[in-house]
Amino acid sequence: MAPTEFLIEARWIIPVVPDGVVLEHHALRVREGRIHDLLPIREARARYANLERMELAHHALIPGLINAHTHAAMVLFRGLGADQPLARWLQDYIWPLEAAFVDRDFVRDGSMLAIAEMLLSGTTCFNDMYFYPDATIEAAAETGIRLVSGIIVLDSPTRFAQTPQEYFHKGFAIRDQYRNQKRIRFTLAPHAPYTVSETTLRQVARFADELDLRVHIHLHETEQEVRDFINQHGCSPIEHLERVGLLTPNLLAVHMTALEAPDIERLFRARCRVIHCPESNFKLGSGFCPVVVLREAGIDVALGTDGAASNDDLDMLGEMKSAAFLAKGLSRNPSRLTARDVLRMATLESARALGLSDEIGSLERGKAADCVAIDLSTPSTRPCYDPVAQIVYAAGREHVSHVWIEGRLEVREGRLERTFEPELSKTAEAWQERIAERLGTVFPRPNDSGPT
Amino acid sequence: MAPTEFLIEARWIIPVVPDGVVLEHHALRVREGRIHDLLPIREARARYANLERMELAHHALIPGLINAHTHAAMVLFRGLGADQPLARWLQDYIWPLEAAFVDRDFVRDGSMLAIAEMLLSGTTCFNDMYFYPDATIEAAAETGIRLVSGIIVLDSPTRFAQTPQEYFHKGFAIRDQYRNQKRIRFTLAPHAPYTVSETTLRQVARFADELDLRVHIHLHETEQEVRDFINQHGCSPIEHLERVGLLTPNLLAVHMTALEAPDIERLFRARCRVIHCPESNFKLGSGFCPVVVLREAGIDVALGTDGAASNDDLDMLGEMKSAAFLAKGLSRNPSRLTARDVLRMATLESARALGLSDEIGSLERGKAADCVAIDLSTPSTRPCYDPVAQIVYAAGREHVSHVWIEGRLEVREGRLERTFEPELSKTAEAWQERIAERLGTVFPRPNDSGPT
Repeated sequence: MAPTEFLIEARWIIPVVPDGVVLEHHALRVREGRIHDLLPIREARARYANLERMELAHHALIPGLINAHTHAAMVLFRGLGADQPLARWLQDYIWPLEAAFVDRDFVRDGSMLAIAEMLLSGTTCFNDMYFYPDATIEAAAETGIRLVSGIIVLDSPTRFAQTPQEYFHKGFAIRDQYRNQKRIRFTLAPHAPYTVSETTLRQVARFADELDLRVHIHLHETEQEVRDFINQHGCSPIEHLERVGLLTPNLLAVHMTALEAPDIERLFRARCRVIHCPESNFKLGSGFCPVVVLREAGIDVALGTDGAASNDDLDMLGEMKSAAFLAKGLSRNPSRLTARDVLRMATLESARALGLSDEIGSLERGKAADCVAIDLSTPSTRPCYDPVAQIVYAAGREHVSHVWIEGRLEVREGRLERTFEPELSKTAEAWQERIAERLGTVFPRPNDSGPT
Repeated sequence: MAPTEFLIEARWIIPVVPDGVVLEHHALRVREGRIHDLLPIREARARYANLERMELAHHALIPGLINAHTHAAMVLFRGLGADQPLARWLQDYIWPLEAAFVDRDFVRDGSMLAIAEMLLSGTTCFNDMYFYPDATIEAAAETGIRLVSGIIVLDSPTRFAQTPQEYFHKGFAIRDQYRNQKRIRFTLAPHAPYTVSETTLRQVARFADELDLRVHIHLHETEQEVRDFINQHGCSPIEHLERVGLLTPNLLAVHMTALEAPDIERLFRARCRVIHCPESNFKLGSGFCPVVVLREAGIDVALGTDGAASNDDLDMLGEMKSAAFLAKGLSRNPSRLTARDVLRMATLESARALGLSDEIGSLERGKAADCVAIDLSTPSTRPCYDPVAQIVYAAGREHVSHVWIEGRLEVREGRLERTFEPELSKTAEAWQERIAERLGTVFPRPNDSGPT
């Protein structure tokens, strides 16, 4: 049995709250899954002399990273249709493959693989939107990771459900089944304004109000989408959400490119939350979310990777760096969106967006002991003058050495504690073979000696 | 003794030439440091039955990556002044620290650390510009990496040299001393048009013509620089280089943001080479190089990281991804600058730019056996449908398992063969202490319990 009470000693502790603090040679006392104390190592050793200690002499300890937008199971489509125009990516790859393969087993196996990747790269909580969410919930429960599970709703039929009413019905049944499951929370997850009818969106708004649930939705992903929507509906997608009653503090608006000043004003007035996915926006050429402007307007901006089919990883350390790079690059100002800012977005702001900031998002007494140790003693993380900058700009997921969730060690020395990695690889390979075979009937296989 | 003749068997071999080819289950026969054959594994085992074999069942083998712009030793300033405005970064951090610390020992120790980071992330050759280049040459020779060493020239005095003539004198003496050293080549490296006078640039042009040397120079790094130059000289930096006779196929123009159509026309006519450093441009908010336009105009675009003080790593896999992301993001077109394109930039186009493409840049018979194996069997690189996309968008430097330079194994299972990593860490830590102490006299030290 793992001890329920112990000390984590680190070279640096970055609690995120208070903002900008870096504690040197401090220890975190964990007790029954919670942060019970945070104090200098010397004092900790004196006060808690009998406790088991984890000594991390060259490591920075940060709050667990929160991936605020995923389609976890899509990891089985990793990299498919890369470098294709958006319409081809969707129409030739993602949609037909989803129709052919996405069932409960797919979601279960994909979620296990995605969770392994997330845990190993320091993510302790993810906000997911996909079919068969119960399969993802079971994978989360088995691995110990925190999950915010979306009650997905679309107008189009899929193998999972045929009508909006069936999506709701299945989604709420899953919520009823798992609502007391530890570390699992729920959102309503209508896919997007262009795939969900006004009637259904109004229903979502009613459920959200009645049940005080967050609403997780793709919004303003590309200029084209916004233009098409205006042509068809005579208003922007944001205005549309305002009309149907979804512009509230419960709204989690994912992507948010192509924003005009009145849109930002609307978001601000309604206290909506924005989820920024810089790498997916880059890779799909979607446009850019004006993160600095939004944060200066007082809007929380959470950070997410999107699915691994458009990223192609689930690595929040890389995502923080890309977010900072993008903001500096666009503004021609290296002091925009600092390392501290993006770490805050990936932890506290993501937690606040998801309504979990009483529980996670910072290393404060009373919160859950969700934390991540990053080894800053390797050739690529030496020397280290500022551990926050080092984590964001120099370190990589491979430097994540230990991960705790609710005080339980899930990653030790870069290895998963509960999941047997070769088993994951075997399963992933089996899916790869099936999917590649299907693709082979659509696209010619790369020739061994000729150009692909 | 390592064998001089052996086979490398890989799941995939990506030779870069011919363009777009992915060979499955092929083997590379290495003989006395050169690529001697490239053929299916089955045939290789029959034809070369007695050779020692390295079996890489889940790996992609690519040409060694070429980092076309570095200030390697600056790795000892890694991350310093991150998130500061450019002028403060230079004036408060980089310049005073260079004045205080940069000597032969600094360059030697910094180069050793930088080379370790580069080898471990799959870089087999780098194009460097810094003071005390002989110390970098010695580090390269000791570690086995290929180096293109710059004969640095500035107008301002440094500890290394006082006048342009002294820079030339020392640089050429170093070239004379090491010109027969294996795997070492030279460029002329005037820092930039705004730091090197017209007279000196004309001298550089004359030397370059006489000796047929490449000229490695920072050019059009920021809009501000271009504006200031026009105000002062009445012409753009590129026009200025044309006047002094530097716009030739020997020119390696680094950064190249803020380009107008006539500038691109000039580069094209003169067959200059461009070196793109996307992450440094992002992090310093420098602006963007129009890579797609340049490549479509037939200009070779090489790829580099710049120094680790403005990146903050020396990771060419990350740089390829950032280059692809940037081009897609700016063009709003996911099919721009594909994975194949950026791999070509980081290998063959970099080799051509540096004048080394007879020797390196692709896996072709007769070229040097500089190659890198990337393990695609981990949870974050499964499943794999397209190994080129996987390498660029999903894999990371931590998946680099083996690196050969001229047929000699320099990295095995992610570990350096020649250098003892703990020794590097100790040296880096000693420099960190000295530099941090100096910074402490300029900036207050982070407070253990208050905001930094």
